[in-house]
Amino acid sequence: MSLREDALKLHADHRGKISVESKVPVRDSRDLSLAYSPGVAEPCKEIAKNRDLISTYTNRANMVAVVSNGTAVLGLGDIGAYAAMPVMEGKAVLFKSFAGVDAFPICLDTKDVDKVVETVKLLAPTFGGINLEDISAPTCFEIERRLKAEMDIPVFHDDQHGTAVVVMAGLINSLKLVHKELKNVKVVTSGAGAAGTAIINLLMNMGVQNVIMCDSKGAIYEGRTSGMNKYKEEIARHTNREMVKGDLAEALKGADIFIGVSVANAVTQDMVKSMAKDPIIFAMANPNPEILPELANEAGAAVVGTGRSDYPNQVNNVTAFPGIFRGALDTEATGINEEMKIAAAYAIAGLVSDAELERDYVMPKAFDPRVGPTVAAAVAKAAMESGVARKHVDPEQVAQHVRELTGRQ
Amino acid sequence: MSLREDALKLHADHRGKISVESKVPVRDSRDLSLAYSPGVAEPCKEIAKNRDLISTYTNRANMVAVVSNGTAVLGLGDIGAYAAMPVMEGKAVLFKSFAGVDAFPICLDTKDVDKVVETVKLLAPTFGGINLEDISAPTCFEIERRLKAEMDIPVFHDDQHGTAVVVMAGLINSLKLVHKELKNVKVVTSGAGAAGTAIINLLMNMGVQNVIMCDSKGAIYEGRTSGMNKYKEEIARHTNREMVKGDLAEALKGADIFIGVSVANAVTQDMVKSMAKDPIIFAMANPNPEILPELANEAGAAVVGTGRSDYPNQVNNVTAFPGIFRGALDTEATGINEEMKIAAAYAIAGLVSDAELERDYVMPKAFDPRVGPTVAAAVAKAAMESGVARKHVDPEQVAQHVRELTGRQ
Repeated sequence: MSLREDALKLHADHRGKISVESKVPVRDSRDLSLAYSPGVAEPCKEIAKNRDLISTYTNRANMVAVVSNGTAVLGLGDIGAYAAMPVMEGKAVLFKSFAGVDAFPICLDTKDVDKVVETVKLLAPTFGGINLEDISAPTCFEIERRLKAEMDIPVFHDDQHGTAVVVMAGLINSLKLVHKELKNVKVVTSGAGAAGTAIINLLMNMGVQNVIMCDSKGAIYEGRTSGMNKYKEEIARHTNREMVKGDLAEALKGADIFIGVSVANAVTQDMVKSMAKDPIIFAMANPNPEILPELANEAGAAVVGTGRSDYPNQVNNVTAFPGIFRGALDTEATGINEEMKIAAAYAIAGLVSDAELERDYVMPKAFDPRVGPTVAAAVAKAAMESGVARKHVDPEQVAQHVRELTGRQ
Repeated sequence: MSLREDALKLHADHRGKISVESKVPVRDSRDLSLAYSPGVAEPCKEIAKNRDLISTYTNRANMVAVVSNGTAVLGLGDIGAYAAMPVMEGKAVLFKSFAGVDAFPICLDTKDVDKVVETVKLLAPTFGGINLEDISAPTCFEIERRLKAEMDIPVFHDDQHGTAVVVMAGLINSLKLVHKELKNVKVVTSGAGAAGTAIINLLMNMGVQNVIMCDSKGAIYEGRTSGMNKYKEEIARHTNREMVKGDLAEALKGADIFIGVSVANAVTQDMVKSMAKDPIIFAMANPNPEILPELANEAGAAVVGTGRSDYPNQVNNVTAFPGIFRGALDTEATGINEEMKIAAAYAIAGLVSDAELERDYVMPKAFDPRVGPTVAAAVAKAAMESGVARKHVDPEQVAQHVRELTGRQ
């Protein structure tokens, strides 16, 4: 059967991909009296006295909401909250399989920013973390900013930050291969959506100084008037200080790195050839990249990554978000900050040893069993060092926690 | 250890009582490509074309939200949405254990009716049913009314209707024992909260004509001015047509049945003695009933039921709500109507055969494995006959579905 037929059959055979299960037995009246009335009143009373005990007596501390309104689902666009459900169930499956995080799809039937924000805040008693997913830009920025400000649990938009972390992991190793340093390279990105914006921000927080973001109208620069919004204006103030104008081809001249989260075939072989020596290309448009790896290689690329599993160097968020949340949850972090993301990027990159590192292997594979534990431990450590952890734990215990929960060794 | 210590230990040992599990394997890239990108796009596209297919490709059709705002939790009162979480997790455990329904706690941090209603409506893409729980009266009536009107999935406030169904089951059998009929009896209830109101309504829908509801100020009658609200005024228009005034003792004179959902010790032995011959007493105040069974028996009660597991005839909602939802979900019912509730009451009552029926056994036990399948089948049949089913199924298949999902035979 085709992928399409197999995928439909898998979903229909199981009627979806997740279930809610009981962790306690209910065999007799005694069980019932402990798990439910009257015994359940005891943990209720304890939490009423001290709200923090909800982490002791309920599953909240391990429960993440996968929140979407279906406005930017995969490459399918605004297909609505109902049609987004299979993706959100799938995300819950990945959270569980890769880091033992209980995750639950919350698909909200609204495009109103205020309603999304208010709903998620009202759900705070149920969830220990919020993973935003497939919400279109620029709405996603506003939703994330407000939730981060108004909630005291981790809020993380994976399309932005998960992608940015994995790209950075790939770049760290790619730069080793070509003997360049983050602080000296020129980076050009294509795509001003959720991922593009987060990548730019993380690049700069990690020391890149020369960045140009391009959108469908070309290079974004301070003072550009066409096709701007407040998020692009913010980007313009901090990037492209040489005020490069013109299209992507113009911006790419002399660049060391291209990062694409835009549309198929946006980059030509001539454009690659116009870049600096040993150009690094991450072409992540889905399902068809900005330039096919074989064409980029032919034009002289030193490293090529895509979002696809059928080419080397797949940028796959599953190497980041499960471990990032595990580290945040195990330390009861109040949020996921830049330090934690950067720690995750270096942890992922560090799993490729110098001996193994080569142009077709700059990132560990999604199923490398070291990824979840390593990322979780690094993120937990960063949460503690950066002061957002409410609970101090041994990072090695966090790593071991992932191994135990997932059975991946 | 004490119940208190055992209950706290159970909750702490497992860190809560539920988990979210994957129903599909994620062992390799192929699994990942089916359960997540790119394969997951296929069911998304199908649902985008035809929203009804969400029942085929996701778990929504078996997923019930257990919604509370923590304003009337057990006998603990308004302890808040956080402290309510152990109860809602417990309810999810019961849904799963007794009818294979996936249920998920949704504790909302608000007392605002509009916000509860709007939030639950926004969550519609995720859930195939809504079980309201532990929301204080009269707010709960307004929330349920609006959700029922504005959603096309089952909405059921278990504290109201689950309780009413099980009480009715007990009454049906109790009346057989004393050779009286619903249409001829005088019923007096105590308590004007969620359960009391629902019991009154179901009593009348099942043919009882003489009912008096009492609250803390005594009998409710048309024209009473003290301590009324619009819900009590509605009750007053349809009950107590003899316009009995005065306290509970006054109302109880000559009554055949007392139903208490109020406070401990509200009924004395003298009050029982003032009732008609062979009085039936359901004293369900928690944890201490309106009158202790030994005292009621001594005063001449023919049948006594309570909410407690340590006395005979426990009114336990777990005999009702799991099967009711199973029957509603398996027929994709647009709601849970009176016909379905009445069918459930007769199904529960019918599990006690005439040969077995006695004053200390008027209702099946919670762990009687016939309960879930029997109730589910009866409710499914009633859903189809009353025209709210979107899917027609063989009731026996619904019963078998419960047996398979729960492993209880």
